[in-house]
Amino acid sequence: MSSPVKAFLLDLSGVLYDGDQAITGAALALSRAREQQRVMRFVTNTATKSAARILSDLSAMGIDIAEEELFTAPIAAKTFIKEQNLRPYCLIHPALLAEFASLPQNEPNCVLIGDAREALTYDNLNKAFRLCQAGAPLIGIGMNRYFKGNDGLMLDAGGFIRLIEWAAGVEAMIMGKPSKTFFAQVVASTGFAPRDCLMVGDDVHADVVGAVEAGLQGCLVQTGKYQPGDESALPDPTRVIPSIASLF
Amino acid sequence: MSSPVKAFLLDLSGVLYDGDQAITGAALALSRAREQQRVMRFVTNTATKSAARILSDLSAMGIDIAEEELFTAPIAAKTFIKEQNLRPYCLIHPALLAEFASLPQNEPNCVLIGDAREALTYDNLNKAFRLCQAGAPLIGIGMNRYFKGNDGLMLDAGGFIRLIEWAAGVEAMIMGKPSKTFFAQVVASTGFAPRDCLMVGDDVHADVVGAVEAGLQGCLVQTGKYQPGDESALPDPTRVIPSIASLF
Repeated sequence: MSSPVKAFLLDLSGVLYDGDQAITGAALALSRAREQQRVMRFVTNTATKSAARILSDLSAMGIDIAEEELFTAPIAAKTFIKEQNLRPYCLIHPALLAEFASLPQNEPNCVLIGDAREALTYDNLNKAFRLCQAGAPLIGIGMNRYFKGNDGLMLDAGGFIRLIEWAAGVEAMIMGKPSKTFFAQVVASTGFAPRDCLMVGDDVHADVVGAVEAGLQGCLVQTGKYQPGDESALPDPTRVIPSIASLF
Repeated sequence: MSSPVKAFLLDLSGVLYDGDQAITGAALALSRAREQQRVMRFVTNTATKSAARILSDLSAMGIDIAEEELFTAPIAAKTFIKEQNLRPYCLIHPALLAEFASLPQNEPNCVLIGDAREALTYDNLNKAFRLCQAGAPLIGIGMNRYFKGNDGLMLDAGGFIRLIEWAAGVEAMIMGKPSKTFFAQVVASTGFAPRDCLMVGDDVHADVVGAVEAGLQGCLVQTGKYQPGDESALPDPTRVIPSIASLF
């Protein structure tokens, strides 16, 4: 009953690569897609790499994509902040500071919280709290509880966003998957309707269920963070494929 | 219908003093209570002063109380940790470090979070998160959103406790008012039944409603953080008095 797919939205980590390693067959699949002149968008919540770094890392794996094809949670946050003419107080990862340097940040009137690690000090969080308490919107890059670090689990941005939400009595706007606004931005860039777009991801909730709830078609890959049994959370009809290698 | 009061539980800040200033008539009221040989307990959530400092500050205001009459949220936490033979990882205010120094803290198996200010770094919070994620109980000293600092509102312990709760998927035990366990500890020390004890405080929720829900009698003073209209939150029958000066 699904419409023919006119545009493909591909998650990065877990779909095209896993850590530093390309998923087997990913580069070949992408080159087939290019030959078939597929419309593709690449969508990620990564908040610890600049867009330029993502492009160069992909290129090193033999996957060349254009800047206009890449949609990240940090870019979505930056676009939103620019559209609203806001001046952000940025608590973000050092790797992203340059990307946000062009935005006015004097006398901030919104708060942006990402995976900022050591920048999440009491004094900085207090500054964020005071701004939100005084009415500044709170914008979160992703809403994850933790991630896998080199020596164990590490706190991600989500808990710090919850901290400010609870103390200031506000609700954050979360940029990135599974936000409907984020999917809508990516879909709009293709010129097609949501039902004509297929989101391909390894995160059954943020990627697949999120996309279907935003009106897209969904496809789960059995690579990356996929766990046997994830299929039980899928809405019907949703495709499941072993890996990106069999998509095109 | 109330039982005669056999023991008085008195909040400190807002009842006996406000900032550095004694409430007018407080010292005189306390000396009358001593003449009448009243059983008294002094109960506070303060997490930025040692018990010794609280006693000396009171003494400087002409109010002498015994160490055994003082119940604070940090002392409750310490007692609980000792009873359970736990080894705490302490994220607490520098003023309290000495008070907890006697507890074993090597290879910690519980987490204690208070109003630790600058000690609430990403690395320290991550350590707390990993312990709780691995099953260590999370103990909070108070659950307040913010307090008034010298130059504006400041984040209190509550938000940081929420951060760890949410990221690790656990629920904290909160020490201090209005915890029923805390009121029960204080009541037990008097040898009387809860219904024979009267809690006197300026915080309509944490002091008065909390005490009544724990089976005590409650009395609201119209000093400290009291605001006109607070009476509407009171259960019947609850006393309201202008200040501690008219209690004894």
